[in-house]
Amino acid sequence: MNLKKMDCGKIKLTQLLEGEFGIEKENVRVKENGEMSLTVHPKSLGDKLTHPYITTDFSESQVEMISPVQENIDEAVGFIKTIHEIVDASLEKGEYLWPQSMPPILPEDENLIPIASYGENGRELESYREHLSAIYGKRKQLVSGVHFNYSLSENVMKVLYQSNTNLVEDYDAFKERVYMKIAANYMKNHWFLVALLGASPALHSSYYKYICKCDDIVNYGKTCYAENATSFRVGRCGYRNEKEFILDYTSFNNYKNSINKLIEDKVINFAKENYSALRIKENSQEKITHLEVRHIDLDPFEASGLSEINLKMVHLLLIYGLLEDDSHYDVTHQKISHHNQVTAADFGLDGRVRMFDENGNSISLQKYLESFYQKLKRKLSVEDLPDDYASAMKEMKRLVEHSESRLSAKILKEMNNTDDYVNWHMSMAQKHRMSVKGKNYNFHGKMDMELSTQLLMREAVKRGVSIELIDRPENFIRLEKFGHEEYVVQATKTSLDNYSSILMMENKVVTKKVLEKSGIQVPKGDSFFDMEKAKSYFQLIKGSSIVVKPKSTNFGLGISILKSNDSVEDYERAVEIAFEHDDTILVEEFVTGREFRIFVIEDEVVGILHRVPANVKGDGLHTIAELVDLKNQDPLRGKGYKTPLEKIAKGEAEAMFLKSQGLDFDSIPEEGQVVYLRENSNISTGGDSIDFTDDIHQSYKDIAVKAMKALNVKITGLDMMIDNIAEPATSDNYSIIELNFNPAIHIHCHPFKGKNRKLNEKIMNALGY
Amino acid sequence: MNLKKMDCGKIKLTQLLEGEFGIEKENVRVKENGEMSLTVHPKSLGDKLTHPYITTDFSESQVEMISPVQENIDEAVGFIKTIHEIVDASLEKGEYLWPQSMPPILPEDENLIPIASYGENGRELESYREHLSAIYGKRKQLVSGVHFNYSLSENVMKVLYQSNTNLVEDYDAFKERVYMKIAANYMKNHWFLVALLGASPALHSSYYKYICKCDDIVNYGKTCYAENATSFRVGRCGYRNEKEFILDYTSFNNYKNSINKLIEDKVINFAKENYSALRIKENSQEKITHLEVRHIDLDPFEASGLSEINLKMVHLLLIYGLLEDDSHYDVTHQKISHHNQVTAADFGLDGRVRMFDENGNSISLQKYLESFYQKLKRKLSVEDLPDDYASAMKEMKRLVEHSESRLSAKILKEMNNTDDYVNWHMSMAQKHRMSVKGKNYNFHGKMDMELSTQLLMREAVKRGVSIELIDRPENFIRLEKFGHEEYVVQATKTSLDNYSSILMMENKVVTKKVLEKSGIQVPKGDSFFDMEKAKSYFQLIKGSSIVVKPKSTNFGLGISILKSNDSVEDYERAVEIAFEHDDTILVEEFVTGREFRIFVIEDEVVGILHRVPANVKGDGLHTIAELVDLKNQDPLRGKGYKTPLEKIAKGEAEAMFLKSQGLDFDSIPEEGQVVYLRENSNISTGGDSIDFTDDIHQSYKDIAVKAMKALNVKITGLDMMIDNIAEPATSDNYSIIELNFNPAIHIHCHPFKGKNRKLNEKIMNALGY
Repeated sequence: MNLKKMDCGKIKLTQLLEGEFGIEKENVRVKENGEMSLTVHPKSLGDKLTHPYITTDFSESQVEMISPVQENIDEAVGFIKTIHEIVDASLEKGEYLWPQSMPPILPEDENLIPIASYGENGRELESYREHLSAIYGKRKQLVSGVHFNYSLSENVMKVLYQSNTNLVEDYDAFKERVYMKIAANYMKNHWFLVALLGASPALHSSYYKYICKCDDIVNYGKTCYAENATSFRVGRCGYRNEKEFILDYTSFNNYKNSINKLIEDKVINFAKENYSALRIKENSQEKITHLEVRHIDLDPFEASGLSEINLKMVHLLLIYGLLEDDSHYDVTHQKISHHNQVTAADFGLDGRVRMFDENGNSISLQKYLESFYQKLKRKLSVEDLPDDYASAMKEMKRLVEHSESRLSAKILKEMNNTDDYVNWHMSMAQKHRMSVKGKNYNFHGKMDMELSTQLLMREAVKRGVSIELIDRPENFIRLEKFGHEEYVVQATKTSLDNYSSILMMENKVVTKKVLEKSGIQVPKGDSFFDMEKAKSYFQLIKGSSIVVKPKSTNFGLGISILKSNDSVEDYERAVEIAFEHDDTILVEEFVTGREFRIFVIEDEVVGILHRVPANVKGDGLHTIAELVDLKNQDPLRGKGYKTPLEKIAKGEAEAMFLKSQGLDFDSIPEEGQVVYLRENSNISTGGDSIDFTDDIHQSYKDIAVKAMKALNVKITGLDMMIDNIAEPATSDNYSIIELNFNPAIHIHCHPFKGKNRKLNEKIMNALGY
Repeated sequence: MNLKKMDCGKIKLTQLLEGEFGIEKENVRVKENGEMSLTVHPKSLGDKLTHPYITTDFSESQVEMISPVQENIDEAVGFIKTIHEIVDASLEKGEYLWPQSMPPILPEDENLIPIASYGENGRELESYREHLSAIYGKRKQLVSGVHFNYSLSENVMKVLYQSNTNLVEDYDAFKERVYMKIAANYMKNHWFLVALLGASPALHSSYYKYICKCDDIVNYGKTCYAENATSFRVGRCGYRNEKEFILDYTSFNNYKNSINKLIEDKVINFAKENYSALRIKENSQEKITHLEVRHIDLDPFEASGLSEINLKMVHLLLIYGLLEDDSHYDVTHQKISHHNQVTAADFGLDGRVRMFDENGNSISLQKYLESFYQKLKRKLSVEDLPDDYASAMKEMKRLVEHSESRLSAKILKEMNNTDDYVNWHMSMAQKHRMSVKGKNYNFHGKMDMELSTQLLMREAVKRGVSIELIDRPENFIRLEKFGHEEYVVQATKTSLDNYSSILMMENKVVTKKVLEKSGIQVPKGDSFFDMEKAKSYFQLIKGSSIVVKPKSTNFGLGISILKSNDSVEDYERAVEIAFEHDDTILVEEFVTGREFRIFVIEDEVVGILHRVPANVKGDGLHTIAELVDLKNQDPLRGKGYKTPLEKIAKGEAEAMFLKSQGLDFDSIPEEGQVVYLRENSNISTGGDSIDFTDDIHQSYKDIAVKAMKALNVKITGLDMMIDNIAEPATSDNYSIIELNFNPAIHIHCHPFKGKNRKLNEKIMNALGY
């Protein structure tokens, strides 16, 4: 069957871009000096045989990171970034992740390169690796890269099928044809991205000495490079089949038969030894599931080795393959494709080298790049693309026109500056590590979700627990490992708690009654659903400072504070106001002391926090405005709740509060003088979170545990007022205000002052992962 | 110490009425012929040794019902009414509760009267009963009555204490003095209520023959009565101490010493053999807890033997004792009190009999009643009382003025009509049973709470599980038995369910995803939080009938229904509208079939219900309006959700819907013709609930259980659309719409058609009680 014309005309380009995306990439672990590390895979990353996200490739030292299928490229890249940060943070002291596709310093004796070990159940994997070593040698196996897995959205595929109703084939056959067309055209065209995105133009002598003794490679000490190479990895020195194969792309069946023929002819031993730029992947029912693009080099300028924009170029080239006028991809085309790939890889920075166009005519690389870009643009009009894809198109154009902007050219340039392949790449590895230091709280690509959930998901990734975002805007996730399923909402709403405990915590009246019954101090007072009884309560409490509030308080509505109240009219009005907001109201004494948030999981107090209003500490030199700016430089502070702390604003509210103290933003506080910019202590208005976990007298922790047992709660953030944290609890020096059934965990993980209490780990432990 | 004057002037009367109230009352079980039943206490009422509400008094046949402490008299009476209904429904066929304080037909041989048996752990109780038999005889022990336990609100007591700051005593001493004053004055004044409320003016020969051979008793066959007696029970034939004691009321300590003296002198054996009209009760710290009024007879006209209004008279007389000018209650007063009590009891319908006033002067009963009422009124002004207490005052006045209106007079009159003590009382017992038939769903005094909760609390009472209304407006209750505590909200929100399952049920998107994953049919469709994706989904579903709705639907807002939709504009507008109400929307196919509510507890389907819109069935004779009125006579139908079904309205909506069918309220449907008055099937608009538990193919029940296991739910009301209930489930003949985490149970207990599925029992079982 031939690749017939398809009608995509009715479908918007934005819709065609819908799909599923997965990324795999490898990095070799290295020592500080750039030598490949010979240690074992970090224990804290769990069992690499079953871990869904973090495993090893060929070598024990070659960490492989795998993102699950994501709905868009930004999320797939974000997932890989997150995994990368987790892996990087798990390495032994002095180890780094090598940011380059071509290997670091390899041992002179290749036998020293450790093959990945998988234990009892992984013998098969190990013996396959022995087989590879025997055929290709161990050194070549350490060439690393990025694999990009792509499938078209199933919904879009169905629409596409319906738009082509003149076709007589069934849906499955149609779908197969779509993928075969994309695959063949991508194979034909991928030279374009090799030229633009290749990022491995240099080598270390410990590799090229044994693998790739090409005369035109410039040897500069131990570093060597080819001055116009874009990618040694997909060029002559890389990890390719020794002899390029000719495969049959006319149907998926023919394609597989042509690979089987190679195996029969003992050209390769396994189908997976087809190291083409693109593989067509199938499921156990032999239906195509997705395409795997394999020619992408690690980008050493990116901390995680890859970028959204470059992968969007790959995605656009795939879509172009669907939109392109149908054409054959026969033996001639494949030979041209091989030639063009290797030429673009080995000499792609030299626009004068000769390529073959699709008709087999010779053309200079630069001309071909330009004309091919024009063809792309005709099908992928920038106006019809979403902004991020439009940017990718523009970036392609820039790279076509400015070879010096390509990754390979930039690497060569920067390396010349540092004069050394190893040193430059190691400096990049160190720089990348520094760039995330103190910021290891976000789950990249999912920063629309709550920070607490992001932290929990990071820990899930580390432990190899699968994550499904079952209702993303609600922070509703499904976790699963070895069949053990948990549904978790907002990180702390879990199956550990029973419904009636939640309802007890949700209800202030009930919470108080139950705590009181257990002999735990709560603010004195009473609750009323009868207005007359509430009013007559005045006689008992007159003269004291009280708060009158509706049972369910929303944003403080309906709350009245009466200091040393002695006006029955004021009191009765307060009662009436409170009843306007709820059927039940509370009349409570004011409580003294400082408020602490005590986080308890099961029977253990895992974190205690005190919140302080937004403030700066004077140094006798800087103005308040300057001190605020300095304090806001803390990477923990951000805007819009994406960070554990918020930047202190210099707004009206802050100015007003300063004014009330006889200050303004230009005042210069004395050294050591603490100036508050807010009355309220909310973290959301720039307040500081201060860890007190180790500083509070044990008796308060015991009370917190007792309180949660009284309500039969497993996870809670308990708010306690304490007069003096150093003195033991008595019957009148503390008071429990509330048990929160949905406490944030991030404030305990990344406080302004104090330790990371790792509540994400604690919750994962409690969930049994 | 003397009873000094107290200042209650600043405290409103309504506030003084605040207090705590408990009731105990007994009924003898009888056979249909009025003979005392000799069977054992009903097994279904649990262990009478530990049951907090239902036990036995002296005899195995004498059921004692105990209300826990309640906040007002209406609730205490309601509790007793509820217990009474439960006990009455638990009796063996042919047994009744004898509605009279004086005994029914007793065995000629008093040894046949069975002493209550309490098993191994109740030997002490049994031997005390043996002791009583020996002293008083068994027959007298069967005299039954009402005990009214009262204490002043602790808050009011504190206010009272503060208002009397000129007093030097401490709070405890003050409180003791308050109760001693009320007690002494009540002892002095209670003759008044004996005269008005006595309700035992007659006897059966099997009692009087052995106990009370007074010459003036009129013997009429086996019935005998005294024509002016109000209460044999507190008169000469009743259960009193043979010789009235003189006690010391000057302080609680003196009071107790005077009782101990009686024991020393062997006048009585135990303190509880003091059968005064009022006892002062203390706790283990020897502090007064409450007062127990003991002279109240069962009211045979009331199903439960007592009425709110009569107990409010008792309460008012207690409060009067507090407000009355202080006075002594010495030996002379006590002798007068004894005389007045017995005279009022034995001759209280004769206004001419002579009483002693508080100064020891002789006065006719009628004069004394009138003058005493005037004194009462001066302290308890009707204008200052709440309506119900004002009514009680007015009723007192009526009873003072019209002796024929008193219970005793009415009993004597009605008995004369039926000519027989036994027959008349048995006819009352039968009438009372009939009056509650088919209405055993309410918890009296708590009808402000949801019917489901009322039903659950009824079952708790039956099983001897203590109930605390921890947040009444929320239907939040605490259950406890033998230390096993459960907090339950709205009858079905319990500790059995875990929080994440609740969140899954609450979230339609998640419910659907999880059910689909388990291979359970749900309405086809998809959810979206991206508007563009939602819009482009049109291409896949155009032409079919769909519903577009926000994820969280409130009262149907934001829902659009598109039948055979083929206008992209309509569809996109529907999507936009839905997004105005939620971040996430659902686009779903219309589902066919009939909707069933399947109630599942743990692994068992316990009830299946189908709801039918409000309708009547023609008989060829009556108009639709008449048919509605007839249908509305069903005791299950009420107004305002206090009953399992609602009355069908004859309002505008119904008239409109009839009109749309070419009918009006005056139309006369043919025999068998069903006319619908509403399109919607809600029970709240008069719909019928029809039990289908036994009629649905097993496969749907299996699916319901599978669905709840998929969500790890323990209690749910699952809504399923089924095409044909007789055919087994296939992959396209049913669909699960929703799992409700808060399903009503009453609709399954009292359906319009079908069995009571006793979900209240099932839930109590599941809770482990």
